[in-house]
Amino acid sequence: MRPLTPADLNPAILNVQYAVRGELAIRAEEFREKLQAGHKDLPFKKVISSNIGNPQQKGLDQPPLTFTRQVAALMEYPPLAELVKDKWPQDVIERAQELQEEIGSIGAYSHSKGVPLIRKHVAKFIEERDGYPSDPEDIFLTAGASAGVSLLLNVLITPPTTGILIPIPQYPLYTATLAQYNGVALPYHLSEPDGWQTSLAEIEAAIAKAEKDGITPKALVIINPGNPTGALLDVPTMESVVRLCEQHSLVLLADEVYQSNLHKPDTHPFHSFKQVVRRLGSPIPLFSFHSISKGVKGECGRRGGYFECANISPEVRALLYKMVSVGLCPPLAGQIGVDCLVRPPRPGQPSYPVWKKETDEIAAALAQRTRIMARRLNALPGVSCVESPGALYLYPRLELPQKAVEAAGKLGKPADALYAMELLEDTGICVIPGSGFGQKDGEHHYRLTCLCPGVEEYVGALESFHVKFLEKYGGL
Amino acid sequence: MRPLTPADLNPAILNVQYAVRGELAIRAEEFREKLQAGHKDLPFKKVISSNIGNPQQKGLDQPPLTFTRQVAALMEYPPLAELVKDKWPQDVIERAQELQEEIGSIGAYSHSKGVPLIRKHVAKFIEERDGYPSDPEDIFLTAGASAGVSLLLNVLITPPTTGILIPIPQYPLYTATLAQYNGVALPYHLSEPDGWQTSLAEIEAAIAKAEKDGITPKALVIINPGNPTGALLDVPTMESVVRLCEQHSLVLLADEVYQSNLHKPDTHPFHSFKQVVRRLGSPIPLFSFHSISKGVKGECGRRGGYFECANISPEVRALLYKMVSVGLCPPLAGQIGVDCLVRPPRPGQPSYPVWKKETDEIAAALAQRTRIMARRLNALPGVSCVESPGALYLYPRLELPQKAVEAAGKLGKPADALYAMELLEDTGICVIPGSGFGQKDGEHHYRLTCLCPGVEEYVGALESFHVKFLEKYGGL
Repeated sequence: MRPLTPADLNPAILNVQYAVRGELAIRAEEFREKLQAGHKDLPFKKVISSNIGNPQQKGLDQPPLTFTRQVAALMEYPPLAELVKDKWPQDVIERAQELQEEIGSIGAYSHSKGVPLIRKHVAKFIEERDGYPSDPEDIFLTAGASAGVSLLLNVLITPPTTGILIPIPQYPLYTATLAQYNGVALPYHLSEPDGWQTSLAEIEAAIAKAEKDGITPKALVIINPGNPTGALLDVPTMESVVRLCEQHSLVLLADEVYQSNLHKPDTHPFHSFKQVVRRLGSPIPLFSFHSISKGVKGECGRRGGYFECANISPEVRALLYKMVSVGLCPPLAGQIGVDCLVRPPRPGQPSYPVWKKETDEIAAALAQRTRIMARRLNALPGVSCVESPGALYLYPRLELPQKAVEAAGKLGKPADALYAMELLEDTGICVIPGSGFGQKDGEHHYRLTCLCPGVEEYVGALESFHVKFLEKYGGL
Repeated sequence: MRPLTPADLNPAILNVQYAVRGELAIRAEEFREKLQAGHKDLPFKKVISSNIGNPQQKGLDQPPLTFTRQVAALMEYPPLAELVKDKWPQDVIERAQELQEEIGSIGAYSHSKGVPLIRKHVAKFIEERDGYPSDPEDIFLTAGASAGVSLLLNVLITPPTTGILIPIPQYPLYTATLAQYNGVALPYHLSEPDGWQTSLAEIEAAIAKAEKDGITPKALVIINPGNPTGALLDVPTMESVVRLCEQHSLVLLADEVYQSNLHKPDTHPFHSFKQVVRRLGSPIPLFSFHSISKGVKGECGRRGGYFECANISPEVRALLYKMVSVGLCPPLAGQIGVDCLVRPPRPGQPSYPVWKKETDEIAAALAQRTRIMARRLNALPGVSCVESPGALYLYPRLELPQKAVEAAGKLGKPADALYAMELLEDTGICVIPGSGFGQKDGEHHYRLTCLCPGVEEYVGALESFHVKFLEKYGGL
């Protein structure tokens, strides 16, 4: 028999692209293995994975929140309660007891939509955030927000003529999943000169183009705060987006996983689409996604998150339930993480002071690093960078020398991919080129995370590489 | 705008059926909520979810293994090590330390294929089991076996003419996922009179029929030990299966999640397909699935498992890696569970005596319950039941009275679905009718798990319901 080759596989799979863990990440992994094996011939001592928002990774070491981890340890091994009785805060022990009474063992499958009590807590969290009712039956706990996005795209896309409107630049989960399910990406450009604002005219233009091409726009993706841009939508824009969805019968997919990563909350606050939809009394079908991987928790490895449905009929909800039931249930460790996300310690509770200190420090450090990095990047020749008011990233724009564009072309690569590869090879810093997120023709960007603790060393390396690169390709 | 209706969605999704968590499970959930709310008008005091192999669920309460849970608790909260230093076995503390050094925080994303060190341990486990080499690069850790099966079917199916050979009866994950990805199920019947053996003639017939229908058979699914049947394949049959895959260029998908649930290991031992493929020197592409949800661990809620590729080219493996990277990584709690599965305490280690006692007790209780339940079911009028040598289930056959068949027909249901619904309403025991797993026309079965601790009460309820049902429909 002949061996299995890529040509034998589902062609949709071949079209999937996911730059965040693509060629650069694989190369970074190789360097990490080399360093671990004791190789001394690399020009750097460690690999910094700035390609991915992974705050607790080795080398970044953002500490996990004590409250979450103590509750989770007690859920793993309930007899531990006896041992820590007078040593851990009483509210930790009570929280674990309450969850154990509801869940039993975390080694059992839960309800496929997630533990009912935790869904109630999520609904309460949303009510307090928005001031509008939320029904636990509308909440689906998931293995991170990605699992929810993937499910919804699979359900919404009827190949081959379903279009999904996605922002450019975008988090490549969207294009990857669209390729996987044979949907058509309908890109609309965010406006860099306005701090990556969402432009209604761009969305309208993308819809018009789709209709001309025989593609039915089915849903609109908004990432707020933006990834990779960090931009926040203001309320008037959100209202216009909702009205546009009404007008074009679009499902709104609101990716709100960075809702608590706000660096300038006074000038750039977060408003949920659920709140705007309810205030307008709009009937648009809305799915909102949230996650424990981002914010100040950064619990990526637990795989936890949820989505809320609004204006979704019981029949459609039952179909979603059927689909999640085939996957049995989201990981219980992630569900416990969601409970701790939506029910953090309150003032007056014994865990509160530690929790407050930990979360304040993480938030302040992130905001400060984002500010410093944006300022320093903006001071470099040929670099301009919107100072991101939210999320975990910067998305600087590069003016690259013509010689670099040509050298990259010879390798069959965009010039920012060449830039990112040389940056990795020179400094051990792994970033993702703009070509992985989308940008206008002829433009160059890269996305980097603002998670590195030693910001001085990190930015210093970025700066000296940049100058070297320009020198190498005649840009200075 | 008009609301979103099922008719607006991907039609493939509408075709998905998953009986294990279907109508009966939803009804069982309603009863459970009623009981919790204090309702007294039901004829039973608790709901027993025998629809799903979920050993640690409330009411069944199979205890988790202490070793796994202590390691996991330390991974959740490393400072705990100080507190338990002289109280927990030293090998627990060392295992957690070793994993922490490799992983860092379990709140970080790992490598998308899973933590490299854990993949090495899996490969070693396979080598010791089979006596043939295993490469950690061929191992993909997953969020339970289901996630791996879903990925592989998505990758192997090019709609609309790809066929996948599946046993009947089958675990409905297969038909559900085939419907989701627009693949064609090519059923082959297992032979009930021979204890549900796999018949090569049936597979050949299914291939011939597919080819006549213009469908390309791409892969063959074998569930060994069987679900729902518990049957084990013997080596000659396995060898013939491998030769048949060679002859027809089929990918072999070996679902081996019950490999350590063996009730009669002397007469019905487990052999892996990997071992048979290697011994024959066969080039067939093979994917083997394993899980921490079954066996004596029963850690369903952690969502952990793995698949191993054999005879898969680096190019195809790279495509699989790309696809899992879009989902970021399997849950770390599940990965820790896999490490404990493949590296249990060894004789001489401090944790060994407790681990040995716990695993022996769980295995013995399961084997004994399976034996008792099969004997008692076989003693009932109109019931015959293969005494399952493996897995967690029995799949008794029912001869149902004509009146019951007619009554069910009027409700638009198969008669075994009526039987299962009345069983649930009468006893609180939730089983899944044979129509959910597949059976020959006119036959009736149901699957029940052998996990209930109070076997006497449980079987007693099944027996008295069965007699009542026959009386009601004139079968006695």
